[in-house]
Amino acid sequence: MNDFSHLNAKGEAHMVDVSAKAITTREALAESRVMLSAEVLRQIQSEQLSKGDVYATARIAGIMAAKKCSDLIPLCHPLPLSNVSLDIEPFETSVRCGLLVRARCRTSGQTGVEMEALTAASVAALTIYDMCKALDKGIVIESTRLLEKRGGKSGDWFANEVESND
Amino acid sequence: MNDFSHLNAKGEAHMVDVSAKAITTREALAESRVMLSAEVLRQIQSEQLSKGDVYATARIAGIMAAKKCSDLIPLCHPLPLSNVSLDIEPFETSVRCGLLVRARCRTSGQTGVEMEALTAASVAALTIYDMCKALDKGIVIESTRLLEKRGGKSGDWFANEVESND
Amino acid sequence: MNDFSHLNAKGEAHMVDVSAKAITTREALAESRVMLSAEVLRQIQSEQLSKGDVYATARIAGIMAAKKCSDLIPLCHPLPLSNVSLDIEPFETSVRCGLLVRARCRTSGQTGVEMEALTAASVAALTIYDMCKALDKGIVIESTRLLEKRGGKSGDWFANEVESND
Amino acid sequence: MNDFSHLNAKGEAHMVDVSAKAITTREALAESRVMLSAEVLRQIQSEQLSKGDVYATARIAGIMAAKKCSDLIPLCHPLPLSNVSLDIEPFETSVRCGLLVRARCRTSGQTGVEMEALTAASVAALTIYDMCKALDKGIVIESTRLLEKRGGKSGDWFANEVESND
Amino acid sequence: MNDFSHLNAKGEAHMVDVSAKAITTREALAESRVMLSAEVLRQIQSEQLSKGDVYATARIAGIMAAKKCSDLIPLCHPLPLSNVSLDIEPFETSVRCGLLVRARCRTSGQTGVEMEALTAASVAALTIYDMCKALDKGIVIESTRLLEKRGGKSGDWFANEVESND
Amino acid sequence: MNDFSHLNAKGEAHMVDVSAKAITTREALAESRVMLSAEVLRQIQSEQLSKGDVYATARIAGIMAAKKCSDLIPLCHPLPLSNVSLDIEPFETSVRCGLLVRARCRTSGQTGVEMEALTAASVAALTIYDMCKALDKGIVIESTRLLEKRGGKSGDWFANEVESND
Repeated sequence: MNDFSHLNAKGEAHMVDVSAKAITTREALAESRVMLSAEVLRQIQSEQLSKGDVYATARIAGIMAAKKCSDLIPLCHPLPLSNVSLDIEPFETSVRCGLLVRARCRTSGQTGVEMEALTAASVAALTIYDMCKALDKGIVIESTRLLEKRGGKSGDWFANEVESND
Repeated sequence: MNDFSHLNAKGEAHMVDVSAKAITTREALAESRVMLSAEVLRQIQSEQLSKGDVYATARIAGIMAAKKCSDLIPLCHPLPLSNVSLDIEPFETSVRCGLLVRARCRTSGQTGVEMEALTAASVAALTIYDMCKALDKGIVIESTRLLEKRGGKSGDWFANEVESND
Repeated sequence: MNDFSHLNAKGEAHMVDVSAKAITTREALAESRVMLSAEVLRQIQSEQLSKGDVYATARIAGIMAAKKCSDLIPLCHPLPLSNVSLDIEPFETSVRCGLLVRARCRTSGQTGVEMEALTAASVAALTIYDMCKALDKGIVIESTRLLEKRGGKSGDWFANEVESND
Repeated sequence: MNDFSHLNAKGEAHMVDVSAKAITTREALAESRVMLSAEVLRQIQSEQLSKGDVYATARIAGIMAAKKCSDLIPLCHPLPLSNVSLDIEPFETSVRCGLLVRARCRTSGQTGVEMEALTAASVAALTIYDMCKALDKGIVIESTRLLEKRGGKSGDWFANEVESND
Repeated sequence: MNDFSHLNAKGEAHMVDVSAKAITTREALAESRVMLSAEVLRQIQSEQLSKGDVYATARIAGIMAAKKCSDLIPLCHPLPLSNVSLDIEPFETSVRCGLLVRARCRTSGQTGVEMEALTAASVAALTIYDMCKALDKGIVIESTRLLEKRGGKSGDWFANEVESND
Repeated sequence: MNDFSHLNAKGEAHMVDVSAKAITTREALAESRVMLSAEVLRQIQSEQLSKGDVYATARIAGIMAAKKCSDLIPLCHPLPLSNVSLDIEPFETSVRCGLLVRARCRTSGQTGVEMEALTAASVAALTIYDMCKALDKGIVIESTRLLEKRGGKSGDWFANEVESND
């Protein structure tokens, strides 16, 4: 026996059976941070001022990735997402700067949307990486994590809002 | 005008035209770190000892994600990957522990496979997250980054092997 | 502020939040017209008489495209379609001729299936184009539009049945 | 007129309209048999003993294929699967041996999951084939069939448990 | 026998065998016109002025659809696209107005990219439709057609630049 | 160490590295047999006589599945297929009858197309199953196997043409 919900008693991967769970509204908020040099961040912000497509491309990529989550993560259930929104903004601490991606997903379903939100944030971050990699090969994506989870049997959950990595 | 290879002079997103580039062997190695509590890491390792599917599921998810990269990242070119391999192992530093995911991709093509390797590492990390999230909601994925890039016009490149996040 | 349901107050694309909407039966009928020379139309009809696969291939392509709609249109919600049917028939007016494609979709869901029906009609039309393009490079697809929409809060809607393009 | 639920009166393929059907719990169990030489079966079993990924890869492939069923089978409805599990084990009769793949799917929906279970079993069997084909080009997949079907208007159904192919 | 390259002598659909064709650079330019009321067009243009995502979302959708072409059009060959770009701009004639979508695709391959360009233009047009449909249910997509085709055995081809639909 | 080309020395699944292999023309022919009752077979044949879509739907499903092979079989390489054709015909032996599906695939690539042909035959067979399952729940798919393989380093290979299962 083990404690992994996705492994059976023999240790074999399977989807968790959610057929007995209630259909309730579930929501999740996740984030990912694309660490950039101050120079690349400045160039992105100046692009955005002149209406460049950097943020829009990453937002669309994130929204479409949320819808592909169960196609990417083997044991995720397919879910009828009722809402996906992506938010991208620059951040700066004393020692680092970059773009902060936040993804919020909502569904009425039998299981949560944490993986959908995390997948959306990750793919939006990778899309920013792709558009900036010609300027800087040393970009790192940090702090991909869940911030909030609402609904479902286990109730609401909120991450400690520590500024990681500073 | 701008410095972004994926934006035209008007700031609009487009695929980079690679039709004039030579077909050469290109390779990339990327990593992602799933930060876990010592207790969850211990449970995963004991699962692996008894042949549980955690690592195998994440490896397969990463390999399949590499093949879907151009379907996820809007401006990536479709590429005929000739090789994808995933490597997962536990790591421990003085203050943190978790699973280190490394993904290596290779192609004979007109453009590099950095995004394929980064996508593979990210999705394998998200798959581990998914299988462990019932044990620990505070898992964070750190340090998704490129380690090596070989081939192509810009030549070989290697990341500084600093242990980030310690 | 703006009037676009898919843009937030900052003008950023997002999925419309449908989580508060009622689940009701929704239906849509859309069409697309493949304008062909009289000679190509005659060849297709003679193919159909001898059981050629032109119509069947286009019908199947349309049905499968309806199921991929949310994967193609970035802000569309994934929907559990309960019915898709495609109808293809020749049409002829005093000055033009071709094939008329009509797609009908139905769901029990929180949002309508207009885009599913329009996507089905468009992809079926493109499939006909593909099979005929060796015979005529000047094929044009006209009049891709919604004909009917039933169910949902905004109620039923019917297009004016004018014969466009004549 | 005809007796095919997926053909209309004109013989044209369409999705069956399930919008009037009740949402009930539906389940299906299907199997597929990969016929192997005794030598290849011995090698697979010895691989499994040393924790090789053969079974795990096939299980993951089957689970992911169940989720892609409506994308593969043109007239299948998209369904929110609530459970998929795959089971692989060696079998031996007096004259044949190989691996038996069984796939179980469950949903709360308006139509059954027979095709999902059959697709999962078939793709898991093909994945085993792929991993063994360098050892034996003469592998044959036999007996892909439904074993059980529960729920829905037509009620429960069970296959005769004859050992086929002996 | 028949003249359809995609039907065999029995009238059955199949992919054209391109294995004997030379790998050459091939390019195609296609367009689609989204007919809008003057009022909706004005609102879109004012959104664009304030950096709204309408055009960007449609461009990204078109680029991603070009990469999915062989997944949508049953008899299309999978192709390694080396370039895709989308261009959207308002147009106005004496009697109509709307948005003109142009899609350009390029490959080094054994077959042309006409369907990729047409699919990109169609899906970008459908994406505009989706974002504007709450403002106007009577939107029509007209004139989806090929404008240019370069490379391959049959050589270059250009459409007559008549302003259709006026 | 092991003999499985898709497992590394540790028994972990990976894609075989084909980057050093020559690009040559490769071809494969595979089959699958859908065993039907004489009554169901009679109904299908009478449907086909009146131009029903059964065979056409299965052919299109098979062709599209060949293009999705690397998305389904975890360790398959993505390949630019240059040709796919499907052939369906009734067969009858002294004790059994049904439909015989044969799929032929061709590519110029670094690895073979056996899995593409087997996937095409399997999915076409499952599509026939889907369309007939309301008539007969006891349908079985037998004898999914490779018939021919041409090209590549290991040379040509042909199955023994025994009539299996009789």
